Amino acid sequence: MAGKFERVELRALRGIPAVCPGDDLGELTAAALKRMRMVLRCGDILVYAQKIVSKAEGRLVDLRTVTPGRRAAELAQETGKDARLIEVILAESSRVVRAAPGLLIVEHRLGFVMANAGVDQSNVVTGNDGSQVLLLPVDPDASAARLGEQLRRRSAINVGVIINDSFGRPWRLGSAGVAIGCAGLPAVLDLRGQPDLVGRTLRATVVGLADEIAAAASLVMGQAAEGQPIVLVRGVVVQGRCSPARALIRPAAEDLFR
Amino acid sequence: MAGKFERVELRALRGIPAVCPGDDLGELTAAALKRMRMVLRCGDILVYAQKIVSKAEGRLVDLRTVTPGRRAAELAQETGKDARLIEVILAESSRVVRAAPGLLIVEHRLGFVMANAGVDQSNVVTGNDGSQVLLLPVDPDASAARLGEQLRRRSAINVGVIINDSFGRPWRLGSAGVAIGCAGLPAVLDLRGQPDLVGRTLRATVVGLADEIAAAASLVMGQAAEGQPIVLVRGVVVQGRCSPARALIRPAAEDLFR
Repeated sequence: MAGKFERVELRALRGIPAVCPGDDLGELTAAALKRMRMVLRCGDILVYAQKIVSKAEGRLVDLRTVTPGRRAAELAQETGKDARLIEVILAESSRVVRAAPGLLIVEHRLGFVMANAGVDQSNVVTGNDGSQVLLLPVDPDASAARLGEQLRRRSAINVGVIINDSFGRPWRLGSAGVAIGCAGLPAVLDLRGQPDLVGRTLRATVVGLADEIAAAASLVMGQAAEGQPIVLVRGVVVQGRCSPARALIRPAAEDLFR
Repeated sequence: MAGKFERVELRALRGIPAVCPGDDLGELTAAALKRMRMVLRCGDILVYAQKIVSKAEGRLVDLRTVTPGRRAAELAQETGKDARLIEVILAESSRVVRAAPGLLIVEHRLGFVMANAGVDQSNVVTGNDGSQVLLLPVDPDASAARLGEQLRRRSAINVGVIINDSFGRPWRLGSAGVAIGCAGLPAVLDLRGQPDLVGRTLRATVVGLADEIAAAASLVMGQAAEGQPIVLVRGVVVQGRCSPARALIRPAAEDLFR
């Protein structure tokens, strides 16, 4: 059940350094909060850009070590992309949704329908010549749960954690932040059966809460997000059973838009 | 170009009364701000729930006055919905995308692919027996521009205005707030060609800014939104050319997800 949401504040944590494999994001978060003289409160939600979670988890692949297979070589022809990059994308995917010049949309093994399986060549490593690419975390819901646990251990406060990314969308232009990992809050808020103010059953009854929070946090991260990849969200009062970001994936059989 | 977004605050305006046809939303906004002892600042963005904009514009239809045509009668069979409701939906639509029991997804005449063309039976009028339904505003971008102009006249401050609604989405469960009207800010933020921190070209280069703001505002409105249908968003620093919400609609020919 959603409570009252009269005031929500979003703050980028300042001075987060470039993240390297093995870095402890819980420690980076605690240090930034301390510098900002802020303490976590119960109900706070921390949103982490996918990029820094992936980096901390060492999800880097050097394309110079990759040998493309036949399918990757074919798709390289079709899309004009680097066959080694496509090999990495295919290894992260369960199926190709669409290939066209300059474009490869797949279903990621985690269920997300997205461009390039989230494999990112930009902004990966300082001095990167493009050979290093960054993959999504192995299990972003588990990453979010671990981060929440780390923060709880440090602060004795239960916080929600979301890992967000920017996805392109069918029918609408421009990317928007979505949740790819979530712990400690309901990613999907089910209001079914709750009456509205005049006693009728609510129309929009299932809310993609974690996606709305992820989109809000994207506003604060900006796009050249390396500098502001962690956002504290305060004031979203939610009750109800916690659910992971994978609950946001619509089963293909139920997807009436397909 | 996006500036720095270090801190964003979202506040629901308190004490907004039930809106009736002919009501002046600019006046309601000014009165609420005055009660809250707040003054608008340059760069503030006001987000209005579609429902109150539609009501103020008198976009109500009484189903008892509607005679369904043949196509509506057929779709009523297919979906199990009221044929008169479907007649109203078809009049608001350019094509039917999908019909199934309990479900009718259309392309709205404004270009939005959405359930029921946004025609809403819930929470319309106190004491409503279901015969009154509410349509989207005739031209939500124009509505947003008019609201912005009203606010500017009252406060001598330039603010952005977004009209939001909750849309279901392909591939993902749960609704999320999107912008159906926008004025005074770039609905679509084009960062193409801007280098990222390590000098590569940014990946996510076109951002659905107004949709991200609309989703953030949804968090504060909640779902039983009649009580908190206006949200003040403060701290989103944007530069760049203003664009309307219709710029967020991906032309079918360019929609590689279709």
